[in-house]
Amino acid sequence: RARGVEPDKYLHGLGAREMAVAEPGEDTVALAALAARRALDAGAVNRADLGLLIVGTETGVDHSKPVASFVHGLLQLPSAMRVYDTQHACYGGTAGVMAAVEWIASGAADGRAALVVCSDIARYGVATAHVPFCKMARKAHVQVRRCDAEDAGTAWDAAAEERAAASFADQVEPSLGLCARVGNIYTGSLYLGLAGLLHAQAPALVGERIGLFSYGSGCTSEFFSAVVGRRAAEQIAAANIAELLAARERISIAEYERLMALPAN
Amino acid sequence: RARGVEPDKYLHGLGAREMAVAEPGEDTVALAALAARRALDAGAVNRADLGLLIVGTETGVDHSKPVASFVHGLLQLPSAMRVYDTQHACYGGTAGVMAAVEWIASGAADGRAALVVCSDIARYGVATAHVPFCKMARKAHVQVRRCDAEDAGTAWDAAAEERAAASFADQVEPSLGLCARVGNIYTGSLYLGLAGLLHAQAPALVGERIGLFSYGSGCTSEFFSAVVGRRAAEQIAAANIAELLAARERISIAEYERLMALPAN
Repeated sequence: RARGVEPDKYLHGLGAREMAVAEPGEDTVALAALAARRALDAGAVNRADLGLLIVGTETGVDHSKPVASFVHGLLQLPSAMRVYDTQHACYGGTAGVMAAVEWIASGAADGRAALVVCSDIARYGVATAHVPFCKMARKAHVQVRRCDAEDAGTAWDAAAEERAAASFADQVEPSLGLCARVGNIYTGSLYLGLAGLLHAQAPALVGERIGLFSYGSGCTSEFFSAVVGRRAAEQIAAANIAELLAARERISIAEYERLMALPAN
Repeated sequence: RARGVEPDKYLHGLGAREMAVAEPGEDTVALAALAARRALDAGAVNRADLGLLIVGTETGVDHSKPVASFVHGLLQLPSAMRVYDTQHACYGGTAGVMAAVEWIASGAADGRAALVVCSDIARYGVATAHVPFCKMARKAHVQVRRCDAEDAGTAWDAAAEERAAASFADQVEPSLGLCARVGNIYTGSLYLGLAGLLHAQAPALVGERIGLFSYGSGCTSEFFSAVVGRRAAEQIAAANIAELLAARERISIAEYERLMALPAN
């Protein structure tokens, strides 16, 4: 119990079990560059093939210079690339993914590859209760089922609620494993969910179509589907998610507050 | 002569003759909404056909909520739209244009239309000498000609410089008419140049391929070409550029400084 709030609020109210925080001095640029380097090191894409770098963020470091430019410079990526940031609250990352997909689908990519990075820094103030946590997905799922029942003209009763809970456990919960251990990461939220799903079930999902819903509180949202690729298991393994989580250092609320009180940079 | 600077610096050094400033209280959102409304009113695109709204800006008003969301709400655009901002210094607008073009070319648009708005607010401080003015285009053009000469192994002499100046007057200067009367507008700069070119020569250019170069100081740039559409003359006329320029109110440097000293909003 800290800051006068019962742990239950986080565990059941938000669905969070652990929360990752950046090291002091780590900013949106540092996190984005690290994520991009890990993706390149893991062989997700060949550095020389890159023609587009987009960073989706809602916590940029400069109005004029995009986070993507810093990443481009820090990683010494090829000079003949289109480089920019996309922004729309937590939907900003998906805006970048869509622009990259359409760059390729339009033929403009001409065989080159795109790298999209989602990066944000959050600081949880004492009075803040940030909503987009796991619990939000559960509420949304139940609401969708309720709409389905209305459309079908069937009753929304205890049995229907139970079926909604069961389908949530089956269809949605597997994608929330990582979210519950990391917390809200803003533009990357949907992709952390996807990583969690693949981390848990990639071998079984190859070739399957999955639904993805991205929401930006600005407000916009996009629902789309994707087919899990045949290299998904190998790629999610290369991301070393279990080791990265295990390598975190546990800190107390008092230590967290001390870190947050440090001047930026 | 104001602020201890000779007028010549602006007239010849930067190539600027007049400079437009926003009214007190006008911010990036207000300018973007006005530009979008004018485009819709001029019939550039059918409101009901819109499926994508992108605002390119380097002077957003909020980290999380994009300018595009404010515009979307103010103009009561259709709810089923993808809405976000693109950012990369002055290249940010072109990033949005490219994403919109590729959204359409990829087939994802499915017959819907995109609206891309470039909007920025500049405040010229006493010590600021903002570079991306008309003169920059002249220097760049001469440099390109010099490179061409090097590639061709021909001499770069006085005659070559004269030819470069002549081709600048022929190929580039017509697009700088509006820029010289408005000043630097950041993400919209290239498109102000395009509007100036069409304003001056649209009927003669229909069906012609023109080159466009967009630069972001972040740093990225993109050179692309476009063919002037057959409705170009009619559309540039509907923009009422001459009237808009004539409707400006002339203010003194003292008045400008008084306005800039007003609190934002």
